[in-house]
Amino acid sequence: MTEQLPVAVDVMGGDNAPDALIEGALLAVDRHDLSVLLVGDPELIADRVGSRTENVSIKPASEVIEMHAEPASSVRKLRDSSVVRTMEAVRDGQACAALSAGNTGAAMASSLLRLGRIKGVSRPAIAGPFPVLGSTPTTMLDLGANADCQPEWLRQFAILGSVYATTRFKIERPRVGVLTIGEEAGKGNTLVKDTVELLSEPGWAESVGAEYIGNVEASELMVGVADVVVCDGFTGNVVLKALEGFNVGYEAAMRAELGKDDVAMRSATPLLKPLWDTYNSGNIGSAMLLGTRGVTMISHGSASAENISNAVKTAKQLDSEGVVLNLRQAIGANR
Amino acid sequence: MTEQLPVAVDVMGGDNAPDALIEGALLAVDRHDLSVLLVGDPELIADRVGSRTENVSIKPASEVIEMHAEPASSVRKLRDSSVVRTMEAVRDGQACAALSAGNTGAAMASSLLRLGRIKGVSRPAIAGPFPVLGSTPTTMLDLGANADCQPEWLRQFAILGSVYATTRFKIERPRVGVLTIGEEAGKGNTLVKDTVELLSEPGWAESVGAEYIGNVEASELMVGVADVVVCDGFTGNVVLKALEGFNVGYEAAMRAELGKDDVAMRSATPLLKPLWDTYNSGNIGSAMLLGTRGVTMISHGSASAENISNAVKTAKQLDSEGVVLNLRQAIGANR
Repeated sequence: MTEQLPVAVDVMGGDNAPDALIEGALLAVDRHDLSVLLVGDPELIADRVGSRTENVSIKPASEVIEMHAEPASSVRKLRDSSVVRTMEAVRDGQACAALSAGNTGAAMASSLLRLGRIKGVSRPAIAGPFPVLGSTPTTMLDLGANADCQPEWLRQFAILGSVYATTRFKIERPRVGVLTIGEEAGKGNTLVKDTVELLSEPGWAESVGAEYIGNVEASELMVGVADVVVCDGFTGNVVLKALEGFNVGYEAAMRAELGKDDVAMRSATPLLKPLWDTYNSGNIGSAMLLGTRGVTMISHGSASAENISNAVKTAKQLDSEGVVLNLRQAIGANR
Repeated sequence: MTEQLPVAVDVMGGDNAPDALIEGALLAVDRHDLSVLLVGDPELIADRVGSRTENVSIKPASEVIEMHAEPASSVRKLRDSSVVRTMEAVRDGQACAALSAGNTGAAMASSLLRLGRIKGVSRPAIAGPFPVLGSTPTTMLDLGANADCQPEWLRQFAILGSVYATTRFKIERPRVGVLTIGEEAGKGNTLVKDTVELLSEPGWAESVGAEYIGNVEASELMVGVADVVVCDGFTGNVVLKALEGFNVGYEAAMRAELGKDDVAMRSATPLLKPLWDTYNSGNIGSAMLLGTRGVTMISHGSASAENISNAVKTAKQLDSEGVVLNLRQAIGANR
């Protein structure tokens, strides 16, 4: 019997909800010595969980915020929705972390409204991993929480991202850069230029044990030249989606081509599958909303049970390693 | 002997200059019943061209703007640079179109300064093809001419892009969309929302024979849901570079994996090579700077002789089909 607080999982959100969510949460319990709090329709959950009670508990929620619903108004109106109740479980000390694979905007809004902002944080941001073949992923933020950004927010994203990368991936001295459209200083749009000016000031990087490396081009994102890359949420989301779309189309085209020749299919598929898996949206790993007073993990809508199990484990680890406290201290030291 | 004006090629710019540029231009002459004007160091060019004189002429230029030089000041200072002289050849009626694979900023600046802006155009934009497997590429603009944009400019990009797609790819009724971070109306940053409002007004699409389809997500870029996609030059360049970088890394990783097994290498490579080629930066095809008074083609710095030959042919075709006149009329009708 685990004595620690469970990870709260919104089992009603996501393309494969509730099955992948419930199954993934139970997998995590089996594998990782942790407990879960499943939030959603209690009868439906009880039906799936069956006689399992050890390290599995249920928190009822009667409403669901659909994937494409308008986030802010939905969170205000649907007070008994699974995602809102998931955040409340963290706020009320029933859970150590929250996980949602549903409507990202609703997860953000409910985390912000129910858990509150860390003091000094201007805007919470979504930090997610960009896969680097054969190496630690690059953490990129913001991936979509803030479509329009100010330079000061991006400066904070650099601080939040550094702390996150250190906690999540055990990177001792994360290299932090700004996404732009040329390696030379002075390249970029107004936001980037103003951000570079702020980040070039001494102090902040040392205070979080990071190294500021300046401009990072989008072409360098997948090769690991940086551990943390900051950008506005519009650009971050566009890049994320572009690569997702590209990868889905590319993998399908490769499978179709290889399907024309049995020998090629049989011999090449086992070699290429690890690459396909690396770039698969679900496998890329969950993102964390940085800046609210609790661990809020956001999984891809298409996440499988396996993906969810990993995300639950990550949520638990981040809480155990005190990520929110670390973020709070870093922001406090940089006000 | 072709009676028409030659395509002016800046042979001094690009990663593989001057060889790939000269060789590519000569290839185009051999294949496409056109003539070329090679602009650069005359001795160097004469040495490469040898005894060929039919449909090949030389315009001397003693200076070169390096790939990473600051564009605007370089164009002002290096008046005898190959890229400036290339644009002057078009301005002075010695050539029908200009082609550069060198410093993109310098090509833009010299096109703007030497050829001038089409009356009514707020800002010229770079329009380039995004490959769609098995179909016509999607034309995206701006790919980097304007890092910060205003909604009215993006509205013009939609008009310019529609005319370009019609002329370049013979698309009868191009579907035109705005790049953003969600399919639903109201998603995006302030620029996108304001642009959507402008583009939703009737009239402009009909005037250029286009269909306005609203929001396009980055994940849809490579599957051909739109023929033309508009965005600010920062976002466009980031997406372009992200996909380039991704593709370079991915292809290398695939080759390394397949290299582990002779059978896989031999059987799969011929099937996958067409895909790799489709996404290869050089093969993707040249972009055109839309909005100046002359055809200005911009090839990728890494373009091969084969790529340059194709770009010269495209430049010639675009001029023959009156692309600049078409753009001018469309802008005139939408002021």
